[in-house]
Amino acid sequence: MNDPQAGELRLLETALYLDDVGLEARFYQDLFELRLLSGTTGPDAVFAALEVPGQGVLLLFKKGANAQPVETAGGIIPPHGGEGRLHLAFAISADSYESWKTRLVARNIKIESEVRWPRGGRSLYFRDPEGNLVELATPELWSFTDSP
Amino acid sequence: MNDPQAGELRLLETALYLDDVGLEARFYQDLFELRLLSGTTGPDAVFAALEVPGQGVLLLFKKGANAQPVETAGGIIPPHGGEGRLHLAFAISADSYESWKTRLVARNIKIESEVRWPRGGRSLYFRDPEGNLVELATPELWSFTDSP
Repeated sequence: MNDPQAGELRLLETALYLDDVGLEARFYQDLFELRLLSGTTGPDAVFAALEVPGQGVLLLFKKGANAQPVETAGGIIPPHGGEGRLHLAFAISADSYESWKTRLVARNIKIESEVRWPRGGRSLYFRDPEGNLVELATPELWSFTDSP
Repeated sequence: MNDPQAGELRLLETALYLDDVGLEARFYQDLFELRLLSGTTGPDAVFAALEVPGQGVLLLFKKGANAQPVETAGGIIPPHGGEGRLHLAFAISADSYESWKTRLVARNIKIESEVRWPRGGRSLYFRDPEGNLVELATPELWSFTDSP
C-alpha cells in the first residue's frame, strides 16, 4: 500500500446553507455560467450541486435539511449544517478583473469592497442573495508554492 | 474590454468558523501536510490560511472575529461569519483511497461513514476537532464536463 499522496489533494467542494436554495442556485448559475450537476433549482429545492470549472463543486443546502443522516443505496451521508454569512472565494485571472466588475454592475450586484493586497493581487467582494460573502480574487494574493 | 472568462473561474478558498483556530489549523496541517500561508496557529490564533495543493486555500476564522469590517492598507474586508458543522470536501485519487483510510486510522480519527456513489467514486467522511464534516472523495463521484 502506498502512502497517501498528500500532494494530490485539492479542494473539491465548498458548501453554503440557505433559506432558498433555488434562488441562490439561479444566482450563481446566471452569474458564473455554472452547470447543475445534481439536485434541483426550483422554489422547493433542498439541494443543488453546481459545477465550477476546474472540477470543483459549489454545494447549496437548505438549512436544516441535513440535520439527520441521509441513507443512500451506497452508504450514509453524515449530518452537517450551518448558518451565518459564510465566505467563499473564486480565482479569476488578473486580465479579467475589470470585465468581472462590469458583469456585476450589469446585474445590479453591488460591489461591497475592493482590496489591493500587499503581496499583489486584487479582490472584489459582493453578496449573494442571502448575504454570503463572495470574493473574486486574482491568485497573486497568495504566495503559493504549488502550481495548479 | 473582454467579456469575463467564466470558464477560467475556479474554487480558490473555502472557510470554517471555529472556537479554536490553532487546534484546527494543526489538525489540518498534520493530516494533509498543508503549509501555513498566513495567520498563526497558536492558542490565541484568530485566523489561519492553509495552502491546499492545486492553488487552493483553507481559511480558518475564529467565530465572531470578522463580525465587523476589517480595514487594511489595501481596502476593507467586509464582515462575514458562521457557525454549525460545516461541510467541505477534498479530491483524492482512487489509487490512494485505502492509504488515506490507513492514515486516518493511524491518527485515531474515526471514519464516520463511507459511501459508494451510483455514478462511481467513493467518499470517506470524518470530523475535524470541532465537528465539521470533512470528506475525501474520488472525483468520479461527479460527472464533470470540465478537465482540471
